[in-house]
Amino acid sequence: MTTLRDIGEDALIARLVALVPVHDDPAAGPGDDCAVIDPGGGSPELLLLKTDAMAGGVHFLMEAPARAVGWKAVARVVSDFAAMGGRPQDFLITVALPGRTAVAWVEDLYRGIGDCLRAFDARLAGGETSSLPDGSAPVISVAATGRVARDRVVLRTGGRPGDIVLVTGRLGGSLRGKHLEFMPRVEEAAWLVSGPFKPTAMMDLSDGLAKDLPRLAAASGCGYRLDQAVLPLTPGCSAADALNDGEDFELLITVAPDQVASLRAGWDIACPTLPLTAIGRLVEADGGDHLSGGWDHFTREPNRA
Amino acid sequence: MTTLRDIGEDALIARLVALVPVHDDPAAGPGDDCAVIDPGGGSPELLLLKTDAMAGGVHFLMEAPARAVGWKAVARVVSDFAAMGGRPQDFLITVALPGRTAVAWVEDLYRGIGDCLRAFDARLAGGETSSLPDGSAPVISVAATGRVARDRVVLRTGGRPGDIVLVTGRLGGSLRGKHLEFMPRVEEAAWLVSGPFKPTAMMDLSDGLAKDLPRLAAASGCGYRLDQAVLPLTPGCSAADALNDGEDFELLITVAPDQVASLRAGWDIACPTLPLTAIGRLVEADGGDHLSGGWDHFTREPNRA
Repeated sequence: MTTLRDIGEDALIARLVALVPVHDDPAAGPGDDCAVIDPGGGSPELLLLKTDAMAGGVHFLMEAPARAVGWKAVARVVSDFAAMGGRPQDFLITVALPGRTAVAWVEDLYRGIGDCLRAFDARLAGGETSSLPDGSAPVISVAATGRVARDRVVLRTGGRPGDIVLVTGRLGGSLRGKHLEFMPRVEEAAWLVSGPFKPTAMMDLSDGLAKDLPRLAAASGCGYRLDQAVLPLTPGCSAADALNDGEDFELLITVAPDQVASLRAGWDIACPTLPLTAIGRLVEADGGDHLSGGWDHFTREPNRA
Repeated sequence: MTTLRDIGEDALIARLVALVPVHDDPAAGPGDDCAVIDPGGGSPELLLLKTDAMAGGVHFLMEAPARAVGWKAVARVVSDFAAMGGRPQDFLITVALPGRTAVAWVEDLYRGIGDCLRAFDARLAGGETSSLPDGSAPVISVAATGRVARDRVVLRTGGRPGDIVLVTGRLGGSLRGKHLEFMPRVEEAAWLVSGPFKPTAMMDLSDGLAKDLPRLAAASGCGYRLDQAVLPLTPGCSAADALNDGEDFELLITVAPDQVASLRAGWDIACPTLPLTAIGRLVEADGGDHLSGGWDHFTREPNRA
């Protein structure tokens, strides 16, 4: 019997998506940080759709503060809207829990959910509670809508050979607590997509640079070269941590080479406290580096404390 | 320690919703079959949002055919769009599964998901796969958007004392397999909301008439009287089954008394094979019957085979 652990997450998703109907427009289906839906009628705004789930013992430990877990559950989705240049709007929150779970734990979880919704001017539109058999891991599933101006949306697919690859913030160290407290880069992304140096491609770093940079390059039909010596590291972290830990929730962007100087000059004024680091470039599809590592569900299942 | 089992689903939801920001417009928040979002710009259509989850050992047994489980996971949400007079559109599907799960089982699940999406001209917009610790119950979480014309949407809140309560189809017997094979009443609902006898309130029956009729009446600020002797029963079922089994996924509607005759005449031509039965009426809030029973997560957790 072939199990999920044998084939890994990416191969599983490819097999599943082939079994269901998708939109004619690839941007309206799976593959990017969000699905981008044109509501029609010449609307100046596009509808963004995203879902994300966290499981106890996988994305958080039951001993972690429930309020921080709630923040993280919403912030992961907010980060995906940021990755399109957009903002979050209406949230659907599902919690599946054994009946023996303490009410106080679930209330703290929702306080954290509320903290993050308020921080980004988003709202609860609905939700679902389901019981689970005792002994099951709790699951928190978040789905949401977002909005982005039609002329500001950035996909993963627009990178071109020669584009410079940049990253916000510092990478690595999520396992030491950062993953529960990160701040989605909504404002920074909104600034990036509003300028003349609008990124050609953008995504958020959720599974580690070693997994996500190859994904962005492949979506753009490119290869990539990475300069590991210049990676911006969380204090105490190695380049290997920055490549593999995952859950950095920083922005990974590509910018046309002739725009990098003006982008940097503007960035240092707009976002003076957050590093923006050029770490490599896109190249032709058949060239460049070949990273492996990062986070993969099913084939690798450590706890994230 | 107070647990979820001690307080039950409705009390839990009330406590959680109070902890998070919601929209000023109650229809855009929790409480109805779907959240109803006005996209603005004078759009003739309203955006509907819904999420629903199923857990192994609660909503289905692992021995159940995975393809039927996939159908049900989508059909439950489609039924909620029907309950607003709307149609489904874009789906986000999350599966959380132990790594030991067979790939073939998940593929069959997605074949069933695809069956139901195709049947209702809906599409996969995105999704999420997550691993779970071994031994955990699998969770399938479905979120989706739908659409309804602004002048055709029906909420739970519009019922008035004196309105007649009607139900489509036959009730009871979900535990004997019906819950895996039901057909959401999208076409019937679209017909109902297009006529001069448009329902004053509508919902789908998911937790049993004994739970859902009181919910609809309360949302409309009414009481209710139910004539148990006339309940349309699935063959072999008792009135108690019809009240308590849940997962009928039929439409529960209220109609102004002077519209019932024309509704029935039209229905018998439009939907000749599906019963439509008057089972009671709304009354003033302080009068009527007081049903108890139906399905409650956390306080009652039998398997649904």
